[in-house]
Amino acid sequence: MKLIDGKKISEQLLGEIKLSVENRLKNNLKIPHLAAILVGDDGASKTYVNSKIKACKSVGFKSSLYSYKVSISEIELISQIKKVNEDKDIDGFIVQLPLPGHIDQDKILNEVDPYKDVDGFHPNNYGKMTLGVDTFLPATPAGIIELIKRTKIKTEGKKCLVIGRSQIVGRPISILLSQNKTFGNSTVTVAHSRSVDLKKLCLESDIIISAIGIPEFIKGDMIKEGSSIIDVGITRVKDHTSSKGYKIVGDVDLKSVSSKAGFVTPVPGGVGPMTISMLLKNTLRACEIAD
Amino acid sequence: MKLIDGKKISEQLLGEIKLSVENRLKNNLKIPHLAAILVGDDGASKTYVNSKIKACKSVGFKSSLYSYKVSISEIELISQIKKVNEDKDIDGFIVQLPLPGHIDQDKILNEVDPYKDVDGFHPNNYGKMTLGVDTFLPATPAGIIELIKRTKIKTEGKKCLVIGRSQIVGRPISILLSQNKTFGNSTVTVAHSRSVDLKKLCLESDIIISAIGIPEFIKGDMIKEGSSIIDVGITRVKDHTSSKGYKIVGDVDLKSVSSKAGFVTPVPGGVGPMTISMLLKNTLRACEIAD
Repeated sequence: MKLIDGKKISEQLLGEIKLSVENRLKNNLKIPHLAAILVGDDGASKTYVNSKIKACKSVGFKSSLYSYKVSISEIELISQIKKVNEDKDIDGFIVQLPLPGHIDQDKILNEVDPYKDVDGFHPNNYGKMTLGVDTFLPATPAGIIELIKRTKIKTEGKKCLVIGRSQIVGRPISILLSQNKTFGNSTVTVAHSRSVDLKKLCLESDIIISAIGIPEFIKGDMIKEGSSIIDVGITRVKDHTSSKGYKIVGDVDLKSVSSKAGFVTPVPGGVGPMTISMLLKNTLRACEIAD
Repeated sequence: MKLIDGKKISEQLLGEIKLSVENRLKNNLKIPHLAAILVGDDGASKTYVNSKIKACKSVGFKSSLYSYKVSISEIELISQIKKVNEDKDIDGFIVQLPLPGHIDQDKILNEVDPYKDVDGFHPNNYGKMTLGVDTFLPATPAGIIELIKRTKIKTEGKKCLVIGRSQIVGRPISILLSQNKTFGNSTVTVAHSRSVDLKKLCLESDIIISAIGIPEFIKGDMIKEGSSIIDVGITRVKDHTSSKGYKIVGDVDLKSVSSKAGFVTPVPGGVGPMTISMLLKNTLRACEIAD
C-alpha cells in the first residue's frame, strides 16, 4: 500500500498558484480576491473560513470576510450577496455552509453570481459540470481528481465505486469520473444508504471513493487486491491520549487494508488539504476569466 | 416476459393532460402554448416537430412553429429566441436539435429562458435536476420514470445498469434513478464505450436501461432472470419486406430475452411514445407555474 500525500500535493498546488499570482503582479494584472460570507457563530464554520483566508494570504490573494449575526434575515442576506456580486474587485466568493435554519440554502446559493461561484454550487455551474462543460468544479471532487491525476492512477475502463450521493462529494465525483475525459472514463457505480451488499460492490471495484462517514468502515476483506481507495470520510472519535480529547478518523481502516490496497489517501492528510487549494485555483481562474 | 405498452401509457398521460386543459378552460385560465424553433430542412427534425405540434392539438394546447433557413446566423437565432422568451403567451418552447454546424448548440440552449425550457436542457435546469431540486426533466428520462412508476417496477435497493452516458438519456436517468426519491434509490452503474465486460455488468443487474444504439445487442444470455429492460435504442435497419424499405429496431433482442426477462419495453411502442407526452406535461407545468 502506498499512501497518497494530500498535504504535499496541496502544497505543490499552492506553490503553483503563488507563482501565477507573482506573474500577474509582474504583468500589472489584478490580484485575485476571494470573499467569504459567514453567518452566525458556529465554531467549525469559523475555523473553515479562517483557514481559507489564511490560505489566501499564503499565495498572495486578497481576501475579505463578511460576517453576519445568526439572526440576519434571508432578504437581508440576499441583499448583501447582491452587493458582493456587484463588487468588481471581488473575483469569487463563498457562502460558508451550513446556514441557520430560517434561511433557505438553495435560494441563497441561487443568488450567487455564477461567474463568482468558486464553490461550484450554483445550479448553472452544477448543470455545466453534469453536461461536461468547463466550469468551476466543487472543491472536494476537484481535489480528488487532482490527487488521481498527480498520482497517475489509471481510471479509463476501471470499475469505480462511489459510496455516498451527496451534492458536495458523491454525486459530482461520480459524474466526473464517468465522463469522457482523461481523468474519467471509469465505469462508475453510486452506492448509498439503500444499496444492498456493499461488501460485494467494494470487492469488485478498482477504485473506491468513500464518503460514508462511518469510522474505519472499509476493511481489508472488503477490497480488491491492488485497488485504490480515496477516503473522504471525516469523523471525530473520542481519544483520551490526544490533548484535544478526540481524533479525526476516516472511512478506511488503514491497518486492515494495508496489505491489499494499492493507493490509499490517509485521514487526515489526504483529501482534506486539497479542498482549500482547489477553491483558490477556482478563484484564480475566476480572476483570469475577468481579465 | 411482459411488454410495457408505452403507447397505451402515453395515451393515458395525454388524456390526463387534455383533462387538465379542459379544467383550465372551465376556470377561465390560460391555454398552454408550446412553441418550436426549427432551423433548416432536415427531414427527421421536421417530422419530430410536426408530431409535437400534432400532439399539442390533440390535448387542446396552442402551438407555434418558428422556422428559419439553414443559413440563419447565430446572432440572429439568439435574437429570435429572445423574442420567444419575451412573448408572454408562450409558456414553453423547444429548439429542435441538431442545429447546423455553424451554430454553437450550447450557446443557443443557454439563451432559452429556464422557466420556458420545457426540454430541460438549460444548464440551470440540468443542475437543479442533478441537485435533486424540482424542475423540468428532459423528456426521455422523464418518460422512462413514468413507465417505471406506472408499471410499478421496484427500484429501491435494486441494481440498475445504464448503458450510455449521453446528455439526453444516460446521464440524466442514471442520476434520477439513484436519487433518494420514490422512483429512485437504485444502486446505479453507468456503462459506456470504455466499459469492460458489459455482459457481466448486465448479468448482475435487476434493471437495464439501454441507450447504446446497437440493434438487438442485448441477448438472453446477457440478462438476469426476471430483470426489467428499458430499451431506448432506435436504429433503422434495412427491411425489404417493409414498404418503407427499413424497420426500427431497438437494443434488445426481444425473442432472445423473452424467456428470461421480467418487463421489457418494445421498440417501437415503448419509450418512444412517452417523450412527446412528457414534453407536453412540462409545458402544462410551465403554464401552471406562470398562472
